[in-house]
Amino acid sequence: MSGWIAIAGIGPGDAALVTPEVSQALAEATDIVGYAPYVSRVPARAGLTLHASDNRVELERAAHALQMAASGRRVVVVSSGDPGVFAMASAVFEALEAGPAAHRELDIRVLPGITAMLAASARAGAPLGHDFCAINLSDNLKPWALIERRLRLAAEADFAMAFYNPRSKARPHGFARVLEVLRETCGEDRLILFARAVSTPEEEMRVVTLGEARPEMADMRTMVILGSSRTRLVERPGRPILYTPRSAA
Amino acid sequence: MSGWIAIAGIGPGDAALVTPEVSQALAEATDIVGYAPYVSRVPARAGLTLHASDNRVELERAAHALQMAASGRRVVVVSSGDPGVFAMASAVFEALEAGPAAHRELDIRVLPGITAMLAASARAGAPLGHDFCAINLSDNLKPWALIERRLRLAAEADFAMAFYNPRSKARPHGFARVLEVLRETCGEDRLILFARAVSTPEEEMRVVTLGEARPEMADMRTMVILGSSRTRLVERPGRPILYTPRSAA
Repeated sequence: MSGWIAIAGIGPGDAALVTPEVSQALAEATDIVGYAPYVSRVPARAGLTLHASDNRVELERAAHALQMAASGRRVVVVSSGDPGVFAMASAVFEALEAGPAAHRELDIRVLPGITAMLAASARAGAPLGHDFCAINLSDNLKPWALIERRLRLAAEADFAMAFYNPRSKARPHGFARVLEVLRETCGEDRLILFARAVSTPEEEMRVVTLGEARPEMADMRTMVILGSSRTRLVERPGRPILYTPRSAA
Repeated sequence: MSGWIAIAGIGPGDAALVTPEVSQALAEATDIVGYAPYVSRVPARAGLTLHASDNRVELERAAHALQMAASGRRVVVVSSGDPGVFAMASAVFEALEAGPAAHRELDIRVLPGITAMLAASARAGAPLGHDFCAINLSDNLKPWALIERRLRLAAEADFAMAFYNPRSKARPHGFARVLEVLRETCGEDRLILFARAVSTPEEEMRVVTLGEARPEMADMRTMVILGSSRTRLVERPGRPILYTPRSAA
């Protein structure tokens, strides 16, 4: 069996943020599997089959990728950002556990990538320069009560917070409640970054206070980062720098 | 003024994990600034000056880099992993705030990299596949009481936890206390990953339970990742896969 499967992170958008390791895997692959907008970022070439699928079919997509690798294909499952952060790696391992025992003998690799929070943080300065947490705000796979509980504990711990999937057409109201909880626990003056489509031509960066933050500032392509109590702005010509000092006091 | 400064992440060790954006900046630089083991990863060439410094002189190093950029040099400050995660980006912005006003007009960029927790997570499977936090265990810049408080709140939130700087020769005892707090809050059966020198020839990966974990399993080159209550192992030929499912329940 010469097939393999690599679950690869293709970064936030700019080709200059794709690691050579991932480019190499894409060059050796026979099949690319993933959500259509990510698959479309892989250049077509002879001998390469692109399998673009819809959102919310992660398990089916993962099972299909494993089956193809088991039949001898060289399969890259692409995720935006990093595959291990709210992306396809966990879905592939869920499918692996649920699938045929023979699949566990496959050559499986996870290839890391530049995840959205680190791309957004770099563009803004260094808001994640001290202790922080990363929370997926989608309640598709967890109850809203758990999200709220984690927000309150993270605020109590004074973590900076990186929020993935803040808002979508299917979930238009949750993020307004998130902002309410954050205002209540962190106060109106806490700084918050809305980083949209980072590293692409549509990139938009905006830093406001929680008092000024509005749900409409986020959409499906927005990474939201809330500062800790220590996060500050350095004013300068052009856009100010948002960063969290290394020291806690 | 044609100088600039880029604070760049050179990833965990393997050159295949350095982004093209960072390679380009290194190729255009006149000066490389950083902690000696990281500077030594940049190939020497004519016209490039390497400024290797000791550990724990981050602010002096940052001020020196800003001064050189202000004098027209093209300066890359290198960090292992990602520069915005417990690395040089925050130190440069601290130095920028404390330094001459003219430095705020400099061309300053942060170039993201593959941070240690994502490289370790990818190699092990996907332990950070659900909500997680990242905590620097060094108490050089924050009181021990704050570290313990964050550990307890993170355990209550059921985050997976990525620990940077778990143990050094200067801080041999703190990590033993961390393991005690974690055993008390998360129980003896919780899975924990020790990932040493990931992506280098010295790489060592070990997954044990908290009951089996010993302080000596970590050193300065070790990334430690504690699973959440949902993190599990998939047994297979060779090393098992450690991952956290996407669903919370």
